[in-house]
Amino acid sequence: MINLSAISTLPPSSVDKDDIEKATDKYVERLGDLQKVLRAEQKHAVLVVFQGMDGSGKDGAVKKVFKDCHPDGISTYSFKKPTDEEFAHDFLWRVHKQAPIRGHIKIFNRSHYEDILIQRVHKWIDEDRANKRIAAINAFEQLLAFDNHTVVLKFYLHLSKAQQALELQERLDDPEKNWKHNPNDWKERELWDDYMRCYEDAINKSAIPWTVVPVDERWYRDYIVSKTLVEALESLHMKFPRISK
Amino acid sequence: MINLSAISTLPPSSVDKDDIEKATDKYVERLGDLQKVLRAEQKHAVLVVFQGMDGSGKDGAVKKVFKDCHPDGISTYSFKKPTDEEFAHDFLWRVHKQAPIRGHIKIFNRSHYEDILIQRVHKWIDEDRANKRIAAINAFEQLLAFDNHTVVLKFYLHLSKAQQALELQERLDDPEKNWKHNPNDWKERELWDDYMRCYEDAINKSAIPWTVVPVDERWYRDYIVSKTLVEALESLHMKFPRISK
Repeated sequence: MINLSAISTLPPSSVDKDDIEKATDKYVERLGDLQKVLRAEQKHAVLVVFQGMDGSGKDGAVKKVFKDCHPDGISTYSFKKPTDEEFAHDFLWRVHKQAPIRGHIKIFNRSHYEDILIQRVHKWIDEDRANKRIAAINAFEQLLAFDNHTVVLKFYLHLSKAQQALELQERLDDPEKNWKHNPNDWKERELWDDYMRCYEDAINKSAIPWTVVPVDERWYRDYIVSKTLVEALESLHMKFPRISK
Repeated sequence: MINLSAISTLPPSSVDKDDIEKATDKYVERLGDLQKVLRAEQKHAVLVVFQGMDGSGKDGAVKKVFKDCHPDGISTYSFKKPTDEEFAHDFLWRVHKQAPIRGHIKIFNRSHYEDILIQRVHKWIDEDRANKRIAAINAFEQLLAFDNHTVVLKFYLHLSKAQQALELQERLDDPEKNWKHNPNDWKERELWDDYMRCYEDAINKSAIPWTVVPVDERWYRDYIVSKTLVEALESLHMKFPRISK
């Protein structure tokens, strides 16, 4: 069982920033190589989920970690407020449509987990429905895994409440970040403890495990994410297909 | 537990064809009325699945039973051989896309059950994967039910092997039915017993129950299907929304 308050949002004190950044560069490059084989072999699909509080650096992780991947084999989907048509369906309808085909990496910036986070925190759904949704999510992710060789990698970007304040303030101060400012983020921040409880529950009840990533330092975030991706893809032992003579 | 070989494909000897046909007409009309409220209330969705061997009368049932429904609130989807894009996803990907919105009736002519029938009979998937797919189907149908108020009604059109021979032969003899002839249907017919075993297993392991419909006589098929639909929709106690003053 994971207890988020017991997990540091900072890098371990033993690590050196320069060393980590060099290691990250290698992982990022290696990820590009692995994606080449993934595209060629077309045997596996990869689904990468990023979740985290506002200011936890989801966008930044996506930009940094996948920069050596070929755009033809990778795409990002950002889940926003559902449309009327999406609202007239079950919560996984719009998510399932976005599932990756074999040979591709699909990145979810936010995901189906919002439906057991924001909706649960605000009590738009009751606890019974939240638990049924958790079971449905487990069945859904397992379906992608067993029926389409999908590797499902989920990252919870673990941010401290203090660091969030700095990140949100920067959106107010930096003209290049103003467009990201949303006054609502400050309201959601007041529900911090409820969010932590729901994240913890989502992570603990998940059939496919999460990686909790300390993100107060961005350089450590990119290291953990790129390392985890590379190790997961290496374990698939993918090969370029050969033309038979 | 259902044993298909113990269930007659004929109407009970006690029933009178004329009486049944009159009752069916009333059910069909009543279904049109119920669909009006369904469309207006927009609270529930309805998914109707038709499965059965070639010649069991899936098309005919769709044509007859829903004739008084408003076309705007109803649509049919016939599942054919998957496209390349569909094949590059899990088996429920193309099915989930077709799930009905609230206020609508969606009819599946064949369905996700083909993925544990034809694919299992021909051993294109192994038994482990078949069982995982059965669990995934249960989770999927329950998701539609709990998260989108979807009533899932599944009809197995129960045809005798002897009657199938007559139906397939008619496609050869009747110029208006020639277009339905497919030499492959005669080949699949040779696997009859395997199909029955897989149908039985699908029905017995289903979380949401099936209706087994004797279809050797078409008039009895339409009676059971329309009666079942009307009773299911009546149990929802739907109401036209009122404008508040």
